[in-house]
Formats: sequence, structure tokens, C-alpha cells
Amino acid sequence: MKENRQILIKSLPQGKLEASNFCLELATMPVLGDDQVLVKTTAFSISAGARAGLQGSASYAGAPAAGRIMNGSGIGQVVESRCKAIPVGQWVKAPTGWQDYSVHNGADTDVIPDDHDPVSYLGPLGVNGLTAYFGVTDIGQPQEGDTVLVSAAAGSVGHLAGQIAKIKGARVVGVCGSDAKGDLLVSELGFDAVVNYKDEDFRQKLKSATPNGVHVYFDNTGGMVLGSALFRMNVGGRIACCGVVSQYDTTRPEPSPKGLPGLLINKRVIMRGFLIYDYMARFKEGRDVLHKWLSSGELKSLTDRVQGLESAPGAFVNLLAGGNIGTRIVELT
Amino acid sequence: MKENRQILIKSLPQGKLEASNFCLELATMPVLGDDQVLVKTTAFSISAGARAGLQGSASYAGAPAAGRIMNGSGIGQVVESRCKAIPVGQWVKAPTGWQDYSVHNGADTDVIPDDHDPVSYLGPLGVNGLTAYFGVTDIGQPQEGDTVLVSAAAGSVGHLAGQIAKIKGARVVGVCGSDAKGDLLVSELGFDAVVNYKDEDFRQKLKSATPNGVHVYFDNTGGMVLGSALFRMNVGGRIACCGVVSQYDTTRPEPSPKGLPGLLINKRVIMRGFLIYDYMARFKEGRDVLHKWLSSGELKSLTDRVQGLESAPGAFVNLLAGGNIGTRIVELT
Repeated sequence: MKENRQILIKSLPQGKLEASNFCLELATMPVLGDDQVLVKTTAFSISAGARAGLQGSASYAGAPAAGRIMNGSGIGQVVESRCKAIPVGQWVKAPTGWQDYSVHNGADTDVIPDDHDPVSYLGPLGVNGLTAYFGVTDIGQPQEGDTVLVSAAAGSVGHLAGQIAKIKGARVVGVCGSDAKGDLLVSELGFDAVVNYKDEDFRQKLKSATPNGVHVYFDNTGGMVLGSALFRMNVGGRIACCGVVSQYDTTRPEPSPKGLPGLLINKRVIMRGFLIYDYMARFKEGRDVLHKWLSSGELKSLTDRVQGLESAPGAFVNLLAGGNIGTRIVELT
Repeated sequence: MKENRQILIKSLPQGKLEASNFCLELATMPVLGDDQVLVKTTAFSISAGARAGLQGSASYAGAPAAGRIMNGSGIGQVVESRCKAIPVGQWVKAPTGWQDYSVHNGADTDVIPDDHDPVSYLGPLGVNGLTAYFGVTDIGQPQEGDTVLVSAAAGSVGHLAGQIAKIKGARVVGVCGSDAKGDLLVSELGFDAVVNYKDEDFRQKLKSATPNGVHVYFDNTGGMVLGSALFRMNVGGRIACCGVVSQYDTTRPEPSPKGLPGLLINKRVIMRGFLIYDYMARFKEGRDVLHKWLSSGELKSLTDRVQGLESAPGAFVNLLAGGNIGTRIVELT
């Protein structure tokens, strides 16, 4: 009988995450119940947000505990089915976790249409793309000609959010952590300007890059970048709070940015947190638009592929240090 | 010729405000231009927000400088008029500042209808009442049965905001700094519960007072009370950021509350700053509703009167220490 390789959370990180917080185990194959499917994982994505769940306390990413399989979204083919609607061979997306095989209720499984690239369900047609789409269009709501600032702009959500804001007619400024990433955002994805938050004169450069202030800030980082962005917000501006990646990989988050809530009052700013799962009823609407933009070439997806289940812990640690460009995907063999 | 007593800003405060930051001077009477009126101040209100303007840097309260007349809203009667629409004897509200006489453009002067109590224009029908009204109805938007939390609940805006939320069908919990204030809010104004933020077990008491969480938080304080409220917010809750009184009377504001923006994301909270001056086009609408509620007795106004222009600096210092209940008004003789 086949074995199921799994990556388990061995221990919750104290301080920064290390690959040694995970371990690879061999488990017996899961058993199918009625209306369930067995999925062989082909690939899964690693998102920085999953680090929030490893802080031990409840977060939007849940509270994974030592001994559990590491959580994550994956794609794969159905290899066994007791669900009439989903045949063997069907490509699906599911919360597979970091393992070769997993069992899912048919009703909870996202069936990938034949004309869609399955891998896109980990990126632009998956949670990342939908987060970028609804975060920009529903929370940020930029108007034509607005300046939209995006942090972690080369990240899995950020690089899509920036492009979506461009499609909506905004001038888009990205904040990222390396000049190479910044060059790519400008040359390949059409960002109007980028600023490297690691530069000593970051605040000054951010100011220069946003001469008309910031109308919409799509915040993936929190922390110092949010603190700097607050001073650039225009009257009536909107901050879409998507993630706090600057604070995930630590057990001692830094203090909140200065000037809250005072700056929100002075500038009459709306700061609004959102989670993509609140938009589930509108996923099809979002995917249809995103698929159209992908097909027309208006929206480009950056993926960053890593090979082998065993590489996942190291790839996660590296991602938290800013090592990825676009969506980091672990491909299983 | 009459003299005009004025209270000037003598120096911007270093640390806490002191009465010695102000001085009383005698000036010559101001001279009227075309379409202007000369107003003899009868009373003016002191608001904590004015302290923000004394921090030297720009704030929503402007940036008064040493040597200027202290700013504030006053009421009085027109004693000389070169404006056809406003006769001598007319009661008006205007940005009189802390002085006996001031000149205003007729167009910028708020004419008080004969059937309205002029003093109410410093309280429930003035900026305080309008701030409470639009802050609750437009920014907070509580639904029937919601729990609404109000900080600085015995303050000039807070005591009105809480009552307006009650009128809208909410359960209202006030936060204030003394048990005497709290008793008054419950017994006289119908607050459902109050919590004293100076109590050592404030967080626990706040939790007990909000068993269904907080749907809308009307924040007049920022700081620790905001920090505690963030943990009580319900999913989809709204924070109306009205003021930051906890941080005004210092040159070294405390760090922003913990968990921003993380808690906004986890709870999908909207945090929104507002200034009443953005609602000027709707002032009449707000006043009409507030006047109706005042007339019917649904809304009660607490005023806290101090006698004499020379008492204003001390009354301001005392207000920042939480000495007032309701709107603090300085009456001139």
C-alpha cells in the first residue's frame, strides 16, 4: 500500500521560524468516506499569512498546533472518488495541507474547469488573486487617476493587487524589499514607481514617489511601511488592511505605527481589515474577471517554483525573509 | 472707548498644559468692514480637541501659535452690524475665540433662530451635538440591538453620542474616568452600563459590560481605551474615530494601541476617522433632528458652566484632567 508523506508542525516557533519547526513523517493512506474524494497533491502554495497561524494564539489563519499537518492550499487530481459529481482524474483545488494525499468532502472541493490552468488556482485564480481583486475593487475602491500604494508589492497578493489597480486606471506605486524585485514590477508588470523599504531614506523616497499623496493603500505588511504610508495618505483616503507580514515571523511584534488613530482623524481616512473568506459567495464573479484579464494578457502572474515536499519548510522560512517573487509554489513529485 | 479683553496663547505647552500658557490682554475694539458684524461674546465652549492645536504641529484643530487669541466657538449678540441680513441684537454663533468682542463676516456667522436656546449652540445643536450625531449615524451606523461603546462618555460629545445610539436602539456602554460620572450617565442619560478606565481591572470590567462584544465603538480617546476596545470588537465592527483626548495633553504621545492593523483584519473591522466640518452641508439636517430630540426630552444635554473670561485657562487645564461633565462653557460677564 502507498504511503502518504506529510510535513507536520513539530513545534511552534520561538522567535523566527526555522525549518526545524517542521518534520517529515510517513502516514498510512487516508480512507474515503461517502461523498468524498482522495486527492493526490501536485503542488501547494506557501503564503506568509500561514505564519500568523503559527504564533500559537488565534489568528485569521487559525491556530495550528504541534503535531498537526501544516496547512495550505493545494491542487491535484482526484485519484479515488466516492462523490458522483467529481470523477477520478478531475483537477481540483482543496486545503490539502503539506502532504501527498488528502481526503475532502466533494462539496468542499473546488473543481477546476478544463480550460483553466490548474496552477493558476494557487495564484491569480486562487485565494491570492481573489484577495487582490476584492481588496482593490471592494475595499480600496481606487478611482481613475488615484495613486495606489501597495506594500509587499512583489508578493503573491501584492503583484496582482498592483496590476489590478493599474487596470482600474490608477497610478501604482509598489513597496518591496529589493531593487531586483522593484525593477521587475516596473518593467514586467507596469508599476509606475517602486520604493525599497530597506533604503535608509525610504520615507523621503516614498514621498517623492507619491507627489500627489496616496488615495488608496493596499497594506500587506503593517509595521513601519504602514507607519510611513499613514503620513502620505490624502484626505478621504482608504487603507485596505490585507496582511501584516512584517509582524508574522516573531513572537514579539513591534509596536503599532505611530499616529493611530490621530492621523485617521486628521485625514478622515478609512482603515478596513478584510478576509477573503468573507467573499466566498462572490468568488465566481472575481474568478471570471481575473480569468478574462489573464487571457487578454492585462494581468500577469509571477510564480516562484520550488521542487519537492521536503523543500517546503526551507522555502517557507526563505519566503518570510522576502526570498520569493510572486506566488511561491511547491511542486510535488 | 470700550476695551476688548482677550486671552492669548502666551506659549505652547511643553508637556502638560498649564494656565500660565495663557495671558489676558486688553486690546482696542475691532473695526467692522462691509458685510461684517461685531459680536459681544456671551459664552464660549472649551473642547479638549483644541489642545491638539497647541501641540505645535498641524492637527485638525489647526496650529495656533504663541501671541494669537485662543480659538474657540462662542455665542453672543450682534452689537453692531454692517450686514443687512443680521440685525443688531441677533443671537449668533461664531468662532469668537476667547475674547469679549469679535468681528465676523455675515456669511460665516451662524444665526440662531429665536426659538432655539442660544447656549444649545455650544452643546447639542453646536459642533458637539453634530459631531455626536453624524459620528453615530453616519460613521458608526449602529443597528437596533447592537452594543455601542463610547469613550470619554461624560464628555461634551460622548454624553450626546451615547444617547443618540440609545435612540437608535442600541445597548450603550460608556467609558469614563470617575464613578460619579458613570452614575450620572446611567441614572440621568439612560446608559446601559459604564466602566471606569481608571479601575485596575478595567479590561475585565469592559469585557463583563460587553457580553455580546462591541458592534460600534465611538472613540473619543484613542490610547489604552482604544487598545482595550479593539479586543472587544465583533466581526464586522466599526470604530468611529472622533478624537484622541488621551494623547492631547502631552508632547510625547504614548505608542499606538497594540494589534494594529492585525486585529482589524482578524475581525474585519472598519476604523474611520472623521471631522465634523466635512458635514457642513448637512448641519441643518442634523440640527433639525437634534432639536426635535431635545424638545421631546429624548436627548438631554449636560452643561458645566464656569464664570468669567479669566477662568478659561484654568477651566481648560481642568477639563484635560477630566474635570468636566458634559460641555464645559465659560460665561462672560
